[in-house]
Amino acid sequence: MRNVKLLLQYDGAAYHGWQRQPNAVTIQEMIEDRIGVMTGERPAVIAASRTDAGVHALGQVASFRTPSSLSPPVFMRALNAMLPPDIRITDACDESEDFHPRFRAQRKVYFYLVSLSRNVSPFLQRYVWGVRHAVDVSAMGRALTQLQGRHDFSSFRASGCGSRSPLRTIYRAELEKLDGIDFMTARLPGNFIKITFEADAFLRHMVRNIVGTLVDIGRGERLPQEMEAIINACDRKAAGPTAPARGLFLEKICY
Amino acid sequence: MRNVKLLLQYDGAAYHGWQRQPNAVTIQEMIEDRIGVMTGERPAVIAASRTDAGVHALGQVASFRTPSSLSPPVFMRALNAMLPPDIRITDACDESEDFHPRFRAQRKVYFYLVSLSRNVSPFLQRYVWGVRHAVDVSAMGRALTQLQGRHDFSSFRASGCGSRSPLRTIYRAELEKLDGIDFMTARLPGNFIKITFEADAFLRHMVRNIVGTLVDIGRGERLPQEMEAIINACDRKAAGPTAPARGLFLEKICY
Repeated sequence: MRNVKLLLQYDGAAYHGWQRQPNAVTIQEMIEDRIGVMTGERPAVIAASRTDAGVHALGQVASFRTPSSLSPPVFMRALNAMLPPDIRITDACDESEDFHPRFRAQRKVYFYLVSLSRNVSPFLQRYVWGVRHAVDVSAMGRALTQLQGRHDFSSFRASGCGSRSPLRTIYRAELEKLDGIDFMTARLPGNFIKITFEADAFLRHMVRNIVGTLVDIGRGERLPQEMEAIINACDRKAAGPTAPARGLFLEKICY
Repeated sequence: MRNVKLLLQYDGAAYHGWQRQPNAVTIQEMIEDRIGVMTGERPAVIAASRTDAGVHALGQVASFRTPSSLSPPVFMRALNAMLPPDIRITDACDESEDFHPRFRAQRKVYFYLVSLSRNVSPFLQRYVWGVRHAVDVSAMGRALTQLQGRHDFSSFRASGCGSRSPLRTIYRAELEKLDGIDFMTARLPGNFIKITFEADAFLRHMVRNIVGTLVDIGRGERLPQEMEAIINACDRKAAGPTAPARGLFLEKICY
């Protein structure tokens, strides 16, 4: 059986995340159903990262097995013709039989965008979390560095997470202040924070729970040096709230 | 009576343009109704440019007369609290009694974005016209230059245009090729054309009718040197189709 790899982008706003669910429209279902129309049998499409409802992807990777002889470019063209415009296949190729997009992933990169301006531009509101309180960005940065390395991230793990181990390694956790964001060919001014995470893998809601905790620290509700104790508590109740999905982007998967 | 000036942005996708209409939601109505809630009387809000259904604005200017003593920052904050997130007031100030946003405008700048790639990113599809045919961009550029200057633009004027004169002066008509567009903090690769128009004012659908004609020329259905004859015909039937609204942005109004 062939193993076809897809690279894809999606605006997650209209979907209940990647994973197929009984009573909600998901990205996995959209793609599986359309491959079914093309080949006459609906394969399981496996993604590198099972993004939550509302989360966006710039570089998701997925694969499926098929006996079809259609070429990868034909799959890409036909899928894009059938899929709605908020899901696009950006590349397709044949992979070795033993390729698995999740198990073979070495690192995953996510970023999260926070707006600190009173007003969020109409062109950015779908893609940022608008935080209207004053925040101490350097305190957030100090807290963020404590997350780097290998830890038990149970404090940032949502209930229902299917992973056997809560251990993850964050290779890179970076915070950037931006004084504007490029939209199309215009520059939209404002105060933004971009927080980037590169890790071997992530637990369910892990990035959003970390970002919610960082914003609590930025607002002075907790001290940056408390981050170590929050991690060590290994208890979801020790950390802050879950940041909204719309600010989160899966940037890329590294193999 | 005070004369309050507003600077505003909107994503036009959900609206039937600026101008109030009996059976459709418009941006003028959204703003007038909310000023009415604040002041107890609903003033006429006049815009510099009456954008069509689906057209976006990065720098629209509007004004209204009011006996209210509320300060411009209070108007801005309260309007933004009441308006949906796809319309934002980005600035407000008091203007002289005789200020009129349309009659006082010296120049208006619009740009239009065309995607020439087979697939349009989910993050750009709301804001570009995806043209899948091969186009000769330099032919489009040669045709575009013939539009500069003062002309009778009747060939590009939609029926129902309320202007008394079809004469307009295009000060600047520029075409740029782009090999990608910045979205948030990512670069989305692709082949794009940005066409910018700076004029004293525009007729109804004028930019979209020009862009539709330019794309016909790019596709080889007409020759670039035909542009002069199309202008001189002073007949809408001489020009090409109307480009879709979603690629059009009102960039700014110059006073």
